[in-house]
Amino acid sequence: MRATLMYEAGDVRIENVPDSVIKHPTDALVRITASCICGSDLWPYGSMTRADGPARMGHEFIGIVEDTGSEVTTVKRGDLVVAPFAISDNTCAFCREGLHTSCSHAQANFWDGEAEEGGQAEAVRVPLADGTLVKLPVAADSALIPSLLTLSDVLGTGYHAAVAGQVNERTRVTVIGDGAVGLMAVLSAKRLGAEQIVLMGRHQGRTDLGHEFGATDVVSARGEEGIEQVRELTGGHGTHVVLEAVGNMPAYQQALGVVRPGGVISRVGVPQYEEAPIGFGSLFRHNLRLAGGPAPVRAYIEELMPDILNGTIEPGKVFDATTNLDGVPAGYQDMADRKSLKVLVNP
Amino acid sequence: MRATLMYEAGDVRIENVPDSVIKHPTDALVRITASCICGSDLWPYGSMTRADGPARMGHEFIGIVEDTGSEVTTVKRGDLVVAPFAISDNTCAFCREGLHTSCSHAQANFWDGEAEEGGQAEAVRVPLADGTLVKLPVAADSALIPSLLTLSDVLGTGYHAAVAGQVNERTRVTVIGDGAVGLMAVLSAKRLGAEQIVLMGRHQGRTDLGHEFGATDVVSARGEEGIEQVRELTGGHGTHVVLEAVGNMPAYQQALGVVRPGGVISRVGVPQYEEAPIGFGSLFRHNLRLAGGPAPVRAYIEELMPDILNGTIEPGKVFDATTNLDGVPAGYQDMADRKSLKVLVNP
Repeated sequence: MRATLMYEAGDVRIENVPDSVIKHPTDALVRITASCICGSDLWPYGSMTRADGPARMGHEFIGIVEDTGSEVTTVKRGDLVVAPFAISDNTCAFCREGLHTSCSHAQANFWDGEAEEGGQAEAVRVPLADGTLVKLPVAADSALIPSLLTLSDVLGTGYHAAVAGQVNERTRVTVIGDGAVGLMAVLSAKRLGAEQIVLMGRHQGRTDLGHEFGATDVVSARGEEGIEQVRELTGGHGTHVVLEAVGNMPAYQQALGVVRPGGVISRVGVPQYEEAPIGFGSLFRHNLRLAGGPAPVRAYIEELMPDILNGTIEPGKVFDATTNLDGVPAGYQDMADRKSLKVLVNP
Repeated sequence: MRATLMYEAGDVRIENVPDSVIKHPTDALVRITASCICGSDLWPYGSMTRADGPARMGHEFIGIVEDTGSEVTTVKRGDLVVAPFAISDNTCAFCREGLHTSCSHAQANFWDGEAEEGGQAEAVRVPLADGTLVKLPVAADSALIPSLLTLSDVLGTGYHAAVAGQVNERTRVTVIGDGAVGLMAVLSAKRLGAEQIVLMGRHQGRTDLGHEFGATDVVSARGEEGIEQVRELTGGHGTHVVLEAVGNMPAYQQALGVVRPGGVISRVGVPQYEEAPIGFGSLFRHNLRLAGGPAPVRAYIEELMPDILNGTIEPGKVFDATTNLDGVPAGYQDMADRKSLKVLVNP
């Protein structure tokens, strides 16, 4: 079968690899019908060393179950399913608390940690299929597929940012980042009723989509100038909640600048730093809080899917390009160049 | 009048200073009847340079109103009052949200930022008296004074840690630090119904008091060994909430070691660091949260005072030594040497 491998920064290839097969009785084999490239794939695309490659890529996909291990009971051959970016058993203490990304099962993992599997491919072996896969009540060629595919990562991740930030109808929100996750954070803050949603981003096509998803204001300036503009828009004090959907240090610093005393910075952009200011002069003085982490998107699929099925939300609008497997390497480059917001892959 | 001045690390003196007087129509002049030395006073006592001194000391006190400015309406001459460690107007947007330590009034401040005033003295000018002072319904020689004095800082600070950590009856809690604030955090977690309270501290007299206040377990080991013991006591995963009542980097690292995935580290020990690990390998991976800051103790006085008046809680037990102003310098040294837990000062 064909699959996507990253050899090092800037070097993504489509190659023939051994067919994925069932290995454990809890596995399912899924023939992928829709997949995509993630903003987080751009971190290794920018910095991965040759020693760390080649790595199988892709952690967001929809597909048709082709085979199941003997212990799998919730999905069967022929089912159309969506997979979250983290494998989980959906039964351990953490999963029951809705924290599937900390599932304590020995086989639980992020897809990016699965050496021989990936979603940007023709097929994939899914460990812990009962816990991980969710059946979709549509056909593989449904017009809703792009939106349903966002349940695998970006929608749930944006939603997690808003939930972890405790957004409600009395909340003013700043969203940092106009990538797919930032836009999903806008949509999620809107869904939770936020009073004001300021989107910080500088790509007009994306911020226009942000407006459509519910942003009340857009600030394209960055750094001190951007902070100043958000403060002007929010009565001088910044917003109760900041949804940080980028993950680098400038984004964190920007979050510190626009968060209101007593407010919360909810991070879902994977931090590209380990140490950061959290002392008296940054977080502590004004009781600022930090929240967020890898989104337990599995926990949100049943909650969010009905809104997609009935057309209340259309998160699939974040896909502005579609390709097949052969177009994946160019898709990475287009996303890195900000020519594409998010690339849908029909293998 | 006589007051406490710190000249530099290790050098605290009692000196004659100009009498405090009313300066603004919103001031009150308070004759101090009970004051104390704070664990946070020990940070400058250990590190203050001569260039930063001399500084007036003391931010926790009870006293009798001796005079009031023309605009003061809520307290009058003769009232016994308690002052929180932060001056606030109790009317601004932040005060109304219960975040008095971020009061937006121009005169709002921490006492430690008031150049010519301090609580370890015979008298003090209190800015924004209406917002800051709370009348006490007892006499100045009441046996409840030590407990009521803890409303000025340590009780409210320990309580804030527990509130900011969202402790409830389903919560397991670790308290790091057996100083006065740590012990108040234990008492507060107990008051909020915590299922298990593990106190990390190594001074037997203090941890005994911690048991009395509600600790279910005590761990005296520190670092990796202490972390291991807390994990053993909590089913292997650590506790949902960690109340960090020390403020140095080892305490933060210890908090990271004992907090459960999805849990919260609530900090009320003033951080003696600015940068710290919060990236993927520390906070982010398991959706750990950070909360806390300078406690808005003013917000908690009305809530906690009845429990003191009716004897439900006896936070005054943290005072294990009493002195007059002349004994204050020795009191600092005794607290620094861990000979005294917390020193009460009757000027």
